[in-house]
Amino acid sequence: MAKEKKLVEAITSMETDFAQWYTDVVKKAELIDYSSVKGCMILKPAGYAIWENIQAELDRRFKETGVENVYMPMFIPESLLEKEKDHVEGFAPEVAWVTHGGLNPLQERMCVRPTSETLFCDFYANDIQSYRDLPKVYNQWCSVVRWEKETRPFLRSREFLWQEGHTAHATAEEAEERTQQMLNLYADFCEEVLAMPVIRGRKSDKEKFAGAEATYTIEALMHDGKALQSGTSHNFGDGFAKAFGIQYTDKENKLQYVHQTSWGMTTRLIGAVIMVHGDDSGLVLPPKIAPTQIAVIPIMQKKEGVLDKAYELKERLSDFRVKVDASDKSPGWKFAEQEMRGIPIRIELGPKDIEANQCVIVRRDTREKEVVSLDNVETKAGEILAAMQSEMLERARAHRDAHISEARNYDEFKDAVNNKPGFIKAMWCGDEACEIKIKEDTTATSRCMPLKEEQPISDVCVCCGRPAKKLVYWGKAY
Amino acid sequence: MAKEKKLVEAITSMETDFAQWYTDVVKKAELIDYSSVKGCMILKPAGYAIWENIQAELDRRFKETGVENVYMPMFIPESLLEKEKDHVEGFAPEVAWVTHGGLNPLQERMCVRPTSETLFCDFYANDIQSYRDLPKVYNQWCSVVRWEKETRPFLRSREFLWQEGHTAHATAEEAEERTQQMLNLYADFCEEVLAMPVIRGRKSDKEKFAGAEATYTIEALMHDGKALQSGTSHNFGDGFAKAFGIQYTDKENKLQYVHQTSWGMTTRLIGAVIMVHGDDSGLVLPPKIAPTQIAVIPIMQKKEGVLDKAYELKERLSDFRVKVDASDKSPGWKFAEQEMRGIPIRIELGPKDIEANQCVIVRRDTREKEVVSLDNVETKAGEILAAMQSEMLERARAHRDAHISEARNYDEFKDAVNNKPGFIKAMWCGDEACEIKIKEDTTATSRCMPLKEEQPISDVCVCCGRPAKKLVYWGKAY
Repeated sequence: MAKEKKLVEAITSMETDFAQWYTDVVKKAELIDYSSVKGCMILKPAGYAIWENIQAELDRRFKETGVENVYMPMFIPESLLEKEKDHVEGFAPEVAWVTHGGLNPLQERMCVRPTSETLFCDFYANDIQSYRDLPKVYNQWCSVVRWEKETRPFLRSREFLWQEGHTAHATAEEAEERTQQMLNLYADFCEEVLAMPVIRGRKSDKEKFAGAEATYTIEALMHDGKALQSGTSHNFGDGFAKAFGIQYTDKENKLQYVHQTSWGMTTRLIGAVIMVHGDDSGLVLPPKIAPTQIAVIPIMQKKEGVLDKAYELKERLSDFRVKVDASDKSPGWKFAEQEMRGIPIRIELGPKDIEANQCVIVRRDTREKEVVSLDNVETKAGEILAAMQSEMLERARAHRDAHISEARNYDEFKDAVNNKPGFIKAMWCGDEACEIKIKEDTTATSRCMPLKEEQPISDVCVCCGRPAKKLVYWGKAY
Repeated sequence: MAKEKKLVEAITSMETDFAQWYTDVVKKAELIDYSSVKGCMILKPAGYAIWENIQAELDRRFKETGVENVYMPMFIPESLLEKEKDHVEGFAPEVAWVTHGGLNPLQERMCVRPTSETLFCDFYANDIQSYRDLPKVYNQWCSVVRWEKETRPFLRSREFLWQEGHTAHATAEEAEERTQQMLNLYADFCEEVLAMPVIRGRKSDKEKFAGAEATYTIEALMHDGKALQSGTSHNFGDGFAKAFGIQYTDKENKLQYVHQTSWGMTTRLIGAVIMVHGDDSGLVLPPKIAPTQIAVIPIMQKKEGVLDKAYELKERLSDFRVKVDASDKSPGWKFAEQEMRGIPIRIELGPKDIEANQCVIVRRDTREKEVVSLDNVETKAGEILAAMQSEMLERARAHRDAHISEARNYDEFKDAVNNKPGFIKAMWCGDEACEIKIKEDTTATSRCMPLKEEQPISDVCVCCGRPAKKLVYWGKAY
């Protein structure tokens, strides 16, 4: 009973305290639990199952582009981490160090991978010899560790699950093409599967990845108007290749350095889904990644024939992921639970419905109710799920577009940061000093320079007034 | 060219040096590479793809029995590891210790999980309150670390991939049932998918898992007559529950301890597949787990129409995992490569075949060649793959059965160890002293006490001559 009591307590409303709402949803939808290891989370079945669906769909899309999966060790010897200067500076302050193996101190300490560029480079240096060995388009699914000081479920934790792709190419052009290909794959995935629109852009030098020549990013907007970096793709040029000596013999028998990329997405995406689609009743999952798409909830289930009919319905709906909730809780309780967990549709089915050869379908996002004949429930359920998937994207896009403001001078910029949650479009001179000043003054950061061509909104930098070079999306971010 | 030269060198023959043959196959079939991290391996695409197939099929079978996947942190605080006495004694000497996070020493050091009983118990202690919360049937796919001194690809490495199931039940009976259910699932998987017969048995107290009341095992026999423990399932009774305080309120509102199990299988299975099925030309993969099931190898591929026809054939064979080898190597070279990699069948297709509306199918295990009309190549390929799968199991079973000897006294036992590679059936008094003596004298260990009832082969212990209690399978093991 203690447990039931916990669930019926209303969750904090989004408007009252968005951060608390988020934490409540994460806990009460049973996605995550805190562990005895500070800053590390436990992914419970409902949370991990979302990741499994994300993983399956991403992996399928990767493989269509020729990606092959591999697995590298989780440890990086200190000397290996130090081989690329920018990279080690970026990561060394936040890694976990292994110093003992069994009862003995190690000769050289090793960190738990915060990312695996160095391991892949070390491998490629041996494995790549000829142009025939290229391209290498490898990926791994694993967890990485970054010793963050402040953590939040899904968004920032000391250990998190992700995929990291690491590729090596003969030419700079091919590497750039792969970098952008993966960014677009990520963006399409977010829109088509997570129903989450994103801005595709390039990071400023200040915000780019440690060791990269160029970092591309997709930036999504959360319900509270804060941005979330949702996936990144990096072009390393031949920097790592030179640091690690990754060379191949070309067709003219000359030694050349390879050009490399890396790209990754993480369980952070689950945080994004929560904050883009959730509401005051809990989670709302896009049908395509919902572990359970349909909850069949019998009414007066003790009446003869009701449960049988519910299971019969489940059988008939075998094209979808369906669960019958036959627990001894009340229907109202089951409805609340289905809503909290974000199950896209529920089907209510009681003795009277059965008599009338019908059922009631309720959509999670809009709460629209529809009485549906049992004769065409499969078709109808499919239609509703498809409509929900596409309308969720449209709604999120409308929300995002309604939360993009423009700032032509620093006053407008500060006003926007304070009063207009969302992205701020503003021009920038290209000088890192302005980025730093803006961040210090307003906490907003440069999110990206959009890849899609956009009209400049003024000629001068929003911060310093010097001639502008780039249009930038700015915003507070997770 | 350097690379090609490496491949054409014949691998060591199995009879000459089985260990070297194994290492050669692992390297030349491109399953694994050594890394800069001593004792840790790199799983290359051909190796990892086998694991993906194993994983997909096991995961499907798990979920049919109600298993849910989760993810626990990779770190275990020292105090948590120490909570169960036998368990910590078993694992503490071989774990990797993390002592620093970022630039600061940790207040309490943590080990990288060697297995996750303690983490699951810590979680269950909070998560389980009522009989309604039971059973918990959780599993995770991850890597674990054990600081082994001697390592061998797939068989023993400092980090390896596995799945670990951890369950909690209301009653001892239910826990015992789940323990055996998973052991049988493992055994069926090995036989039906890996074409590898196993002996299902129970470990002696000496050989059981640290902290378990009972450990069940499946033991397979490698081509060289050594045993390989291929999967284990443990019943913990309420030992961990008492150490961690995992209690639930039963229907009579009384506090009870849960009963727990755990069970795991690892990438070691890939080593088993290599050593059960491989031959002097390399790997032989059971069709069900082969990443590529059919290699289409065009002959005279520069002739017009040949490559087109090869790709057309691939399309038609879309029920299978097919690759066309259109590289600029010679057909003979491609055959050797397909054999080394253990691809179950190759289809040779040249201009003359095309003219005659036929192709040549060659089976990897028996090397049987068959000329097949292109009109029914799909059916024929399916039949050959199915035949290969079942005959591989039959052959492995015949080999295993031909390598089981019986020993009625210690002389017979020592003779068997020295001269009859394989399992040795012999009676045992149940005293650990005899197990230790046998191991010291012969290096053979007790593999298991078979679950299937077998006739006793004598009344007395093969070692001490006292009354026998159990029939035991003994053997040298990996």
